[in-house]
Amino acid sequence: MRIDSPRMRQSWEAMAEIGATEAGGVTRLALSDADAAARDLFVSWCRDAGLEIRVDDLGTIYAWRGGSDPNALPVALGSHLDTVIRGGRFDGALGVLAGLEVMRALNDAAVETRHPIVLIDFTNEEGARFEPAMVASGVLAGAFEADQVRAIRDREGIGFGSELRRIGYWGEENSRLRSAAAYLELHIEQGPILESLGIPVGLVTGIQGIERVNVSFVGEAAHAGPTPMNERHDALAAASRLVLGARDIAVASNGAATVGRMEIDPDVINVIPGQTKLGLDLRHQDVHTLDRMSGSARELSTAIAADESVDVTFEPFWRSNPVVFDPGLLGVLSDVASRLDVKVHRIASGAGHDAKYMAELAPTAMIFVRTIGGRSHYEQELAHWEDCEAGANVLLNAIFCIATDAS
Amino acid sequence: MRIDSPRMRQSWEAMAEIGATEAGGVTRLALSDADAAARDLFVSWCRDAGLEIRVDDLGTIYAWRGGSDPNALPVALGSHLDTVIRGGRFDGALGVLAGLEVMRALNDAAVETRHPIVLIDFTNEEGARFEPAMVASGVLAGAFEADQVRAIRDREGIGFGSELRRIGYWGEENSRLRSAAAYLELHIEQGPILESLGIPVGLVTGIQGIERVNVSFVGEAAHAGPTPMNERHDALAAASRLVLGARDIAVASNGAATVGRMEIDPDVINVIPGQTKLGLDLRHQDVHTLDRMSGSARELSTAIAADESVDVTFEPFWRSNPVVFDPGLLGVLSDVASRLDVKVHRIASGAGHDAKYMAELAPTAMIFVRTIGGRSHYEQELAHWEDCEAGANVLLNAIFCIATDAS
Repeated sequence: MRIDSPRMRQSWEAMAEIGATEAGGVTRLALSDADAAARDLFVSWCRDAGLEIRVDDLGTIYAWRGGSDPNALPVALGSHLDTVIRGGRFDGALGVLAGLEVMRALNDAAVETRHPIVLIDFTNEEGARFEPAMVASGVLAGAFEADQVRAIRDREGIGFGSELRRIGYWGEENSRLRSAAAYLELHIEQGPILESLGIPVGLVTGIQGIERVNVSFVGEAAHAGPTPMNERHDALAAASRLVLGARDIAVASNGAATVGRMEIDPDVINVIPGQTKLGLDLRHQDVHTLDRMSGSARELSTAIAADESVDVTFEPFWRSNPVVFDPGLLGVLSDVASRLDVKVHRIASGAGHDAKYMAELAPTAMIFVRTIGGRSHYEQELAHWEDCEAGANVLLNAIFCIATDAS
Repeated sequence: MRIDSPRMRQSWEAMAEIGATEAGGVTRLALSDADAAARDLFVSWCRDAGLEIRVDDLGTIYAWRGGSDPNALPVALGSHLDTVIRGGRFDGALGVLAGLEVMRALNDAAVETRHPIVLIDFTNEEGARFEPAMVASGVLAGAFEADQVRAIRDREGIGFGSELRRIGYWGEENSRLRSAAAYLELHIEQGPILESLGIPVGLVTGIQGIERVNVSFVGEAAHAGPTPMNERHDALAAASRLVLGARDIAVASNGAATVGRMEIDPDVINVIPGQTKLGLDLRHQDVHTLDRMSGSARELSTAIAADESVDVTFEPFWRSNPVVFDPGLLGVLSDVASRLDVKVHRIASGAGHDAKYMAELAPTAMIFVRTIGGRSHYEQELAHWEDCEAGANVLLNAIFCIATDAS
């Protein structure tokens, strides 16, 4: 089976008109007027495709296609229609519209599946308006309470719940998806790995775990002139060694380490820094390796502090454990790609997705589409259309296999 | 000859009362009421010692002791009575009061010198109220124009000139010192070298040159998750390498290098820094070595940028060339110290002093007194009184030698 590529593209382009920016991107913040218009268009397309619409109490939209077995768990797929400010046209929308195309293709082929199939548009995946991200799928997984989520306010003080009601998408708690036979999400990679390998589609093995640490070095601020190099207690020299050492740890572990922010005190050109505070972000797909990376970074910080004659505090303050996607489902995706002659490569996702929480409800996996330049969350975000088509064909055939128990 | 140590201490303690802070320090900003009171007290002591007071058009006070030869150039000594906010009791005042004690000791011994001797209290050495520092000695050396200096305003908009007039110290341009047979300044070291060597007095060979450079690395801001370590253009990693590499350059050159300030953009924990801007302060006493250090730092920045796949700009924006003090004068100080059995060590000054500009008018050198903990510009600034006494005795005997042509 193949999707109708021009039809999918037409829908995708029409969707990209909603909230379109002058520079070719999209601003469609969650529960904004643009998001409401996108939802209305999506719902109308789903109804045209004969799907039954349900909306839950967080505004997440479920478009159901019936199955022959009333007792079979649904097969779920989807993504999100919200974007960041001045985001791109692919992030989120591509997965939703590839899912819509899956439904249309199944209709065209007059396929009846044993399992029902449900296409999902998750509310507020980005967290760009209402923080944190992925709260709607998080409620399905029990990570958040619905009341708490609806009480979140944006920077202008407008509430998630009041916006849900205003745009007419405060649905029924009963509509929430409780479990599924599988969940598949197609998304652009947002990173450079597939492009550098020359491979159009990625099979996502999971979502990397993240550990965030505040590290503070306290030395002694002193005048740059009269203080000899060997008498210094330079907090920035210590921090610089950690920046580079954390990178070495990440490379050796095949993980990632980033120092994205640093505060320097007193931050004056002729004063040796007396204090630095930095934020260290460690990522790995294996929880034990992530633990080891964090342990190594702590040991390194202590060793640097001793060597530089400064004090150090190393305080992990936030942790998101790795999610490992379902090996059986990855096997299905791999078989399907092979039959379709689509080259694939297994990669881990560095960024979070609703699939992170869906993995707690159902066997879950993701399909990544190669991203040009590896960049996302900007207006020039781009992917080759043929890659989108290839990814959607993998999605279609995998959904077909699972929903017909043909895998 | 020896100074009267208790008498010097009494004057020094009385001076420290003016602008005294609760924590044991002094706030005596240039041309403030406290500075005016300090000047008045100093002038009264000088008059008691039979010295003739002149004040120039920048408020610098000259206390003259006559010589036997009306054609002989004066021998000058001095320092400053102004302080930073919450500064210490030694910085500046010690040199002025050691100079006063020199005059008193010469009087006690009824010494008549061939050269006249002039004790100087320079206006606004610190630059803590009126920026930049050392403007009054700078006018003597032709580095600044008097009108420009008097037009400088403090942070509250109050002018240097109007404050000079208000406190009654706008004197005559004719009173300016034009040249001298020698200039000697006693000052606390403000660094840890003498303390670490266990030596009470330093003979200062010059003032280090300073080159300040703005270095900017421009990489690519990208999400910490999906961007593999080997695909990054991390501006902070590049900056960190320069922080450490500049230190290596300084150590290899026996100079100093400090990165005191750094700006990171976007400075968010989960975003790889796209840009860093740092301020590099390089110091050396030899101008050619300073040039080489700057050249090495530039080459290193370029090499790091290539290696890290980022762009770099390296822009020197301020330069103060090294000042080399007079070898003959240093020889006199060395001989005198040897005769007095005072242990000395030759060191370069990392910080600026009025002696920097005086070196353009006269053969110049400085005497440093060991500073406890190597720290200055804070209220707990401290020196052993015996070290102050030893330094003042070196100053007294050196002035005597030079003023009597006995060296």
